Amino acid sequence: MTNEITIVKIGGNIIDNAEKLHQFIKDFAQLKEPKILVHGGGKIATEISKSLGIEAQLIDGRRITDQETLKVVTMVYGGLVNKNIVAKLQVFGCNALGLTGADANLIPARKRPVTTIDYGFVGDIAEGVINSEIIDQFLQSELTLVFAPLTHDGQGNLLNTNADTIASVLAVALAKKYQTQLIYCFEKKGVLAEISDENSVISQINKTQYEKLKADGVIAQGMIPKLDNAFEALQQGVRSVVICHADAIGQLAQENSTAGTTLIL
Amino acid sequence: MTNEITIVKIGGNIIDNAEKLHQFIKDFAQLKEPKILVHGGGKIATEISKSLGIEAQLIDGRRITDQETLKVVTMVYGGLVNKNIVAKLQVFGCNALGLTGADANLIPARKRPVTTIDYGFVGDIAEGVINSEIIDQFLQSELTLVFAPLTHDGQGNLLNTNADTIASVLAVALAKKYQTQLIYCFEKKGVLAEISDENSVISQINKTQYEKLKADGVIAQGMIPKLDNAFEALQQGVRSVVICHADAIGQLAQENSTAGTTLIL
Repeated sequence: MTNEITIVKIGGNIIDNAEKLHQFIKDFAQLKEPKILVHGGGKIATEISKSLGIEAQLIDGRRITDQETLKVVTMVYGGLVNKNIVAKLQVFGCNALGLTGADANLIPARKRPVTTIDYGFVGDIAEGVINSEIIDQFLQSELTLVFAPLTHDGQGNLLNTNADTIASVLAVALAKKYQTQLIYCFEKKGVLAEISDENSVISQINKTQYEKLKADGVIAQGMIPKLDNAFEALQQGVRSVVICHADAIGQLAQENSTAGTTLIL
Repeated sequence: MTNEITIVKIGGNIIDNAEKLHQFIKDFAQLKEPKILVHGGGKIATEISKSLGIEAQLIDGRRITDQETLKVVTMVYGGLVNKNIVAKLQVFGCNALGLTGADANLIPARKRPVTTIDYGFVGDIAEGVINSEIIDQFLQSELTLVFAPLTHDGQGNLLNTNADTIASVLAVALAKKYQTQLIYCFEKKGVLAEISDENSVISQINKTQYEKLKADGVIAQGMIPKLDNAFEALQQGVRSVVICHADAIGQLAQENSTAGTTLIL
């Protein structure tokens, strides 16, 4: 086994599109092992909630995970989405194992404390709590891990947890042993120099360049928390973070190939 | 690690009752490791199907797993039920890992061939296909495995699969390496000498006694396939099969204690 690992995060935009998801799974299966996939939720949970007559609880425009919503996300993220990705990866010879943070106590978390907002069953992950020893045993068994965005509080409750965060804490935890590459797939081809020009992808940025682009207003609002988190992961030992379109995974599976924007310290 | 393993199967009657399930999980957590839990479905899938407007497809009184029903059982069995059992076992210090047969390709199956009835996405498991090497690696990592009643066909489809069958094929596969005890929990205290007397539990039966009780009409219709399967598992190397009430698991967790009916060759 090489000492490099790739962690890929995909969001709802891929999960909601059967054709795109199929292509992504095929491409992801070609990536060098060891590797981990973290998936988000997608619209299916919202649709199923609606069909079940569960109203989305919003406070100040923020989604609340009440008991009924937690049931739906456990079913949809932990069951439907996760197990279908696993079954489909098996078709391409990728020996996938579907997981939540409750499984093998891999990602203990705590229910977000109530301040002005009670987010409900939402998990925050403390530093250094990932059970990377068991993760490593799974990787040694040549398994590809597929994480649903769920953790648990050790008191018997599952917790809805941000998939970007799960991907980044896994990357940081594994960086102690592996040369870790973290790939965030999203709707654009990468960080754009011109927001209106899809092809103006900046191929590489370091922290200093990022601060300048931010000061100049080139990097827009929505990207800032994503990139701040990415640089935070780099500072904690992750070797590189790539931000790209899910379409680019096939390209990244090829030796010495790059795509999207690579962030380095 | 001892060379003994316990495989417990629970059905819908436990899963549907939150209080009973809580007690069962607490008791199961006390059982000596290594151990495996296989759970069935329960009424939640039927209720959720109804809420989603999916009509149960029945042919000749037999349930058909069409595409929509498969989605529901994947959500409910593979997600809601499985992950909640895992999270709750963690409370009692039992390091549980939730699985389907698609995960790590543990239980490959094939879609039941269409004869006079098309059962839909239902899985039949061939002999000798269980990936017991990876199961064993999980057990060596001191994990307790929790199986949902789902397998996969290797073509990307999950398959609804009888939980009794999963428990018995796992027991047979692991019997090659372990002294295997298979425990079927059901509604009664065990095999009864008098169907109307809950306390007339036969504590032990061998194959010859079973054939006699069957011929004498003491063992009734519903029990016959269950016991036939149990004796089949014994013939394939499983050391003992216990049929008991889920309430008895706490008792079985105690050293040298018995409960229900023990079947031996």
